[in-house]
Amino acid sequence: MKSNLISINDIARALGISPSTVSRALKDHPDISTETKRIVKEYAEQVNYRPNALALSLKRQRSNTLGLIIPEITHHFFSSVISGIEELAYAKGYRLIICQSNEDYNREVINTQVLLDNRVDGILISISKTTHDHGHFKDLIDSGIPLVFLDRVSEEVETDRVVTADFEGALIATSHLLETGRKRILHLASPKHLHVGRLRQEGYLKALQNYGIEPDPDLIIQCDTRLEVYQLKEEILRIAPKIDGIFAVNDFTAIAAMQILQENGSRIPEDIAVTGFGNDPIASIAYPPLTTVEQSGFEMGRQAVEILIKRIENPSTFIDFQTRVIPVSLEKRAST
Amino acid sequence: MKSNLISINDIARALGISPSTVSRALKDHPDISTETKRIVKEYAEQVNYRPNALALSLKRQRSNTLGLIIPEITHHFFSSVISGIEELAYAKGYRLIICQSNEDYNREVINTQVLLDNRVDGILISISKTTHDHGHFKDLIDSGIPLVFLDRVSEEVETDRVVTADFEGALIATSHLLETGRKRILHLASPKHLHVGRLRQEGYLKALQNYGIEPDPDLIIQCDTRLEVYQLKEEILRIAPKIDGIFAVNDFTAIAAMQILQENGSRIPEDIAVTGFGNDPIASIAYPPLTTVEQSGFEMGRQAVEILIKRIENPSTFIDFQTRVIPVSLEKRAST
Repeated sequence: MKSNLISINDIARALGISPSTVSRALKDHPDISTETKRIVKEYAEQVNYRPNALALSLKRQRSNTLGLIIPEITHHFFSSVISGIEELAYAKGYRLIICQSNEDYNREVINTQVLLDNRVDGILISISKTTHDHGHFKDLIDSGIPLVFLDRVSEEVETDRVVTADFEGALIATSHLLETGRKRILHLASPKHLHVGRLRQEGYLKALQNYGIEPDPDLIIQCDTRLEVYQLKEEILRIAPKIDGIFAVNDFTAIAAMQILQENGSRIPEDIAVTGFGNDPIASIAYPPLTTVEQSGFEMGRQAVEILIKRIENPSTFIDFQTRVIPVSLEKRAST
Repeated sequence: MKSNLISINDIARALGISPSTVSRALKDHPDISTETKRIVKEYAEQVNYRPNALALSLKRQRSNTLGLIIPEITHHFFSSVISGIEELAYAKGYRLIICQSNEDYNREVINTQVLLDNRVDGILISISKTTHDHGHFKDLIDSGIPLVFLDRVSEEVETDRVVTADFEGALIATSHLLETGRKRILHLASPKHLHVGRLRQEGYLKALQNYGIEPDPDLIIQCDTRLEVYQLKEEILRIAPKIDGIFAVNDFTAIAAMQILQENGSRIPEDIAVTGFGNDPIASIAYPPLTTVEQSGFEMGRQAVEILIKRIENPSTFIDFQTRVIPVSLEKRAST
């Protein structure tokens, strides 16, 4: 019996290496050196550690429940992601419980604890905007629960990821403005510590570069919610006479910007052409209807849960971590 | 020890009555006859059933987790409800797990099972449109888990409820159309088995009656989603010349109706004035901005979880079931 009590953490502690290194060494991960693998395997044999038995016992304890942590349920993108996850999860006999971090780091940490307490078989996460410390994700990895990042990923944690083609989306949206003759394009951007925000800004800059336009730091404003548009109203209106286009990091920001500009007498798209990102249902209801980048949340959710279930059902098989990129397309409407 | 193993279910089986009757008899519920209370209490004493000990033991097993089942996460109303729930729940040291029924009865049944498996302390539910059998709610009640219905309630299950003032909302929205001189008002309605839908229809009918207008059955169409508006487009356009107002059961339906009418050459509000229900953010983004009924989802969530936590923390106290009604108000905009 005692041998069953030896965990990967015990081996890690005994050898002074990380649990994930032990785990990968036992699964013959190519990133782990032959020497480390030898040491880990010898020690594991010595203490009678039985990975297959453990895997089997874990398998018997399966709850057939998956956990999802998302920042904001209200976003149509995330509800599409949920639909994609549920479609495949329910078809495969899994149930889904959802926790909302509300863009709050502390709640995200509590959420991971709730999912652990509820013995979910695997976790899907899109990280909150306020998360700077990634220790709680590492704890999940170390406790052996498969983890897939969706859309907003942690770059510090090595695991599976499913992301939007953010750079390409920003590139095609900005290029579309440039193609239609716009030259002074304001970028309403997300905070740079968000990978998604950084990639979209890079796509914007790349489009300018392709057209030989020098980027102007004054034309990049950190502003990615409806509320922030109202808070930065004066600054945006001050810049308005100098610009002929806007690429906003999401549709909510784009529409709020259109509204304050229209109230101030600007014509959309005649004076200023505007594109968003996300193709939220409000984009087609806005006046004028908003040109935006379609990102398939449903497909993202489906692919993420496909990867997760594969890991859950093959606990002792080595599978390379993968990053899948969901393609995007431009929805041209009357705002450009 | 053995006495602790006697459950309410055991007593119910022995006496041939329902567990909820036993539970209420032991708590001196006024709906239970004196005779039944006497029989239940005598038997409980005989088998040494100790409710306080049980309550205490239940208390010790508390998971500090609440469960929520909602039909569609994508609706802004439900995400406001979630925010209201989380605001109070986290402040009181509870966590929240959310399940989406996706308007599907079978998933709703699975969701209740997931929450039971995860030993939540209490459950909040807004029922799906396709739920006609309410046995799974009765099972929850019988298993002793406090249950609060939100917005879409079951009339077959006696428990706490927090609802919108649906009748009053429909009454003020329709009356507003009548006050502005509209006489032929189309009602885009929800299915009648939904309590919410029936109350809104009754409010519409009451407003007509107040203005001495005979209701026309041709002017009530069952149509409560954007998709259904498109499916019933021909019927709505056929009726359009005969009407001068629309009261839609929700904002999505109202906005979709405005769009197909505008495409067909009708002017909003000159030819047809339109009101929705819910004050979703899209209502102010629509063109023209939509007059609608504000229902405070946040306040509904907050009050529902307040009732739930009170029950959880006082398991052996008799508290009358209550129905709280969250007041509404009319948001007048350019569509009327």
